[in-house]
Amino acid sequence: MAKEVTKRAENYSQWYNDIVVKAELAEQSAVRGCMVIKPYGYAIWEKMQSVLDSMFKKTGVQNAYFPLFIPKSFFSREAEHVAGFAKECAVVTHHRLMNDPDGKGVVVDPEARLEEELIVRPTSETIIWSTYKNWINSWRDLPILCNQWCNVVRWEMRTRMFLRTAEFLWQEGHTAHATSEEAEAKAREMVEVYADFARNYMALPVIVGHKSPNERFAGALDTLTIEAMMQDGKALQAGTSHFLGQNFAKSFDVKFADKDGSLQYVWATSWGVSTRLMGALIMAHSDDEGLVLPPALAPIQVVMVPIYKTQEERAAVLGKMEAIKTELEQMGHSVKIDDRDTLRPGFKFAEWELKGVPVRIAMGARDLAAGTVEVARRDTLTKETMALEGICAHIHSLLDDIQANIYRKAADFRESRVEKCDNWEEFKEKIQTGRFLLCHWDGTPETEQKIKDETKATIRCIPEDSFVCEEEGTDIFSGKPSHRRVVFAIAY
Amino acid sequence: MAKEVTKRAENYSQWYNDIVVKAELAEQSAVRGCMVIKPYGYAIWEKMQSVLDSMFKKTGVQNAYFPLFIPKSFFSREAEHVAGFAKECAVVTHHRLMNDPDGKGVVVDPEARLEEELIVRPTSETIIWSTYKNWINSWRDLPILCNQWCNVVRWEMRTRMFLRTAEFLWQEGHTAHATSEEAEAKAREMVEVYADFARNYMALPVIVGHKSPNERFAGALDTLTIEAMMQDGKALQAGTSHFLGQNFAKSFDVKFADKDGSLQYVWATSWGVSTRLMGALIMAHSDDEGLVLPPALAPIQVVMVPIYKTQEERAAVLGKMEAIKTELEQMGHSVKIDDRDTLRPGFKFAEWELKGVPVRIAMGARDLAAGTVEVARRDTLTKETMALEGICAHIHSLLDDIQANIYRKAADFRESRVEKCDNWEEFKEKIQTGRFLLCHWDGTPETEQKIKDETKATIRCIPEDSFVCEEEGTDIFSGKPSHRRVVFAIAY
Repeated sequence: MAKEVTKRAENYSQWYNDIVVKAELAEQSAVRGCMVIKPYGYAIWEKMQSVLDSMFKKTGVQNAYFPLFIPKSFFSREAEHVAGFAKECAVVTHHRLMNDPDGKGVVVDPEARLEEELIVRPTSETIIWSTYKNWINSWRDLPILCNQWCNVVRWEMRTRMFLRTAEFLWQEGHTAHATSEEAEAKAREMVEVYADFARNYMALPVIVGHKSPNERFAGALDTLTIEAMMQDGKALQAGTSHFLGQNFAKSFDVKFADKDGSLQYVWATSWGVSTRLMGALIMAHSDDEGLVLPPALAPIQVVMVPIYKTQEERAAVLGKMEAIKTELEQMGHSVKIDDRDTLRPGFKFAEWELKGVPVRIAMGARDLAAGTVEVARRDTLTKETMALEGICAHIHSLLDDIQANIYRKAADFRESRVEKCDNWEEFKEKIQTGRFLLCHWDGTPETEQKIKDETKATIRCIPEDSFVCEEEGTDIFSGKPSHRRVVFAIAY
Repeated sequence: MAKEVTKRAENYSQWYNDIVVKAELAEQSAVRGCMVIKPYGYAIWEKMQSVLDSMFKKTGVQNAYFPLFIPKSFFSREAEHVAGFAKECAVVTHHRLMNDPDGKGVVVDPEARLEEELIVRPTSETIIWSTYKNWINSWRDLPILCNQWCNVVRWEMRTRMFLRTAEFLWQEGHTAHATSEEAEAKAREMVEVYADFARNYMALPVIVGHKSPNERFAGALDTLTIEAMMQDGKALQAGTSHFLGQNFAKSFDVKFADKDGSLQYVWATSWGVSTRLMGALIMAHSDDEGLVLPPALAPIQVVMVPIYKTQEERAAVLGKMEAIKTELEQMGHSVKIDDRDTLRPGFKFAEWELKGVPVRIAMGARDLAAGTVEVARRDTLTKETMALEGICAHIHSLLDDIQANIYRKAADFRESRVEKCDNWEEFKEKIQTGRFLLCHWDGTPETEQKIKDETKATIRCIPEDSFVCEEEGTDIFSGKPSHRRVVFAIAY
């Protein structure tokens, strides 16, 4: 069968790619490093957006929109930020094409050179803080809590669909506060929103923690992160929230008159998640049969496949299915009846399995007579014959079970791959087998860098809510004293 | 008062700009021609998006996402399209910045020149049809009904916020069909969706019609449009839907195997509306006091301002307001209680008037005792004292009245400015006074061009559902025979 997916054990990376393409989530475009997000993939992203957007709004955040382009000079303003971001990016230098005087086609008009080059935003701190300068005069103007949903471009050399692409979709929140405490609390609040979303919608167990200085966002004083484990034991950073201190306010001269009349620099946060979450979702739960979607984010939660020989049987079965669909929709579920008559039921079963629909209902004339249906779960690949009576209430609770089971499975897997490690030789070996290793670290960037150079492993986070080990020990590499363990892993 | 708006009669163009800025809808950014859409403006756009998106989905359309960048060579493929679009656009030529070797700041790395320049999409027909080629093999793959919400860039020389900006937000639908009839029907269906949205949500009377060949979209066989009249009598094209024939399919070699086995080129449509709708909304309804929003698109439909002297009075009034708010929210309305205690009620009244909130409720301790409230309508600027008893049901129907009244007002205004004209001297004079003139036209692009050269007026549309005048006559300019009148106006 053409749609067969490479086995994880055979080639994990090809397995991932197969699922993205064969489940029709995305594909490579004609532009290097940019993908096309196909309707089925985009429908999942829309669900993510919709849930996250209402979570943000509940915390008082409002959406806005800032320009795609950033003047080149803005990148020179915040020194650390330049170093971290301004290198690989798309640079607009001209604003006109013209017909090629030598023949066919179009060429760039050399006369239409921009006075100052424009950078396609890789992130928007600079353009947003240059705008906030006009919005902020007094403490009464604070806080400002803005978010934007948009596209950004980072000219990545090695790309993988959803995980790392030149253009990607994301949200970036940018807040401005009167005090350091308020800004830090906001950065914390937003990482908790991300963790809540990851756990309860994506069914993704994540560790919340601080980044080490080496892994911090360029220009941040502190970066909070949610870190997830994929099925190969590697780590995936799924969302970050930054406490930016007064760095951007100082670069763009954004001050406010405080209640006592004194002029103060404004405190900042920024926080974002991207279409990378799609990659995390796919890699965390899918299996060798294809995509596995948690019901909370599945565009289609229940698919129904009629089985029939005659047109009369077809009409009878579809009639019953319509009734079930209506009832399930009233309960808030999304349901599809796959009544295509050019395809066999077996083909449809395989297709919806590949696409990760959580529940499949099959029904034929015999079922109808017997008052039963066949219900298949995608997460366990099990089937059960059930009474038609009360089927909707049953499906409703089954979807909850599936959501919980997918989370549990991922959590159990992670549990089996997290361990303490206190021996450097052991570390070097184990880290290559896909594990989160809880190790003592002396707190220096130098040690972290040396460990990375030798093993490719980095400190994923200094954990704050799971696997917290505040205990005395010695750094696994340098042997210097340490007060807590941190999470080391090889990351995407 | 700092927030005062220029009068329409004084300077119409400044009036528009004042409303955009002072009602905090948008502002100019640091990047030439690009605007910042502020939270209040963006909230209106989000409402528009949400309504349109569900209207599209009801017609079977799905969302997807295609790349921001288009290879330069794609623009050479569809000859007419190049001529119409490829001139003024943002061209990406490099992919890296580096530290300036001569000193501070960053410069473009000359080594990082792209082999082929990339164009920031001005519209996406080319990249989408190059993608559809991979999606379409057989008639079974058709129709494809995709839409994307995204940003596009057209390097406009003279920009005006919302109406014409270098970067703007829009949706672009792109459909692929097996037959010409089906594609034409889809183009028609989508312009009807736009007309429905404009009339019933934006309270904007629009004329649906065909564009003349001169005003057609580059590469289209037919362009359907909705045309609205602004308060200065000028026309604003608010949305277009194009029947593209097989032009893009031929340029990108997109064929399908028909039921009879023969290979056929695919038929196409595209259709879009943009943040320009915001400009239309503002210009159609606002007055010298500020923005006027139809309730169906107002982010805040009802604002409540408490009036009090003591903290006891404040608590009592706010308590009652909370109860009203809860009840109105349960009816599906968005309500804000403006309890800022550093501002006087009069200041708040003016601010919410400027921001176009449809209904304002003021309540003081005396009202509470008397069981009354003061209700002010934004559209008519009238106030009324009403009984608290049954106030929510009353507000609910008042919002419907306001929606209908805003539409009626705009329709009456347009009615007063549409007339038949059969005399060229009269035409030249009247067209400058802001009118839609229904005139005979001989059907040639040459005549239309000459009329445009002399008066700046263009054929806004050949009307299909309003002001249809199929009658014999002679062209107002050339004197040649004509079978119907068309709508001439000066346009934004």
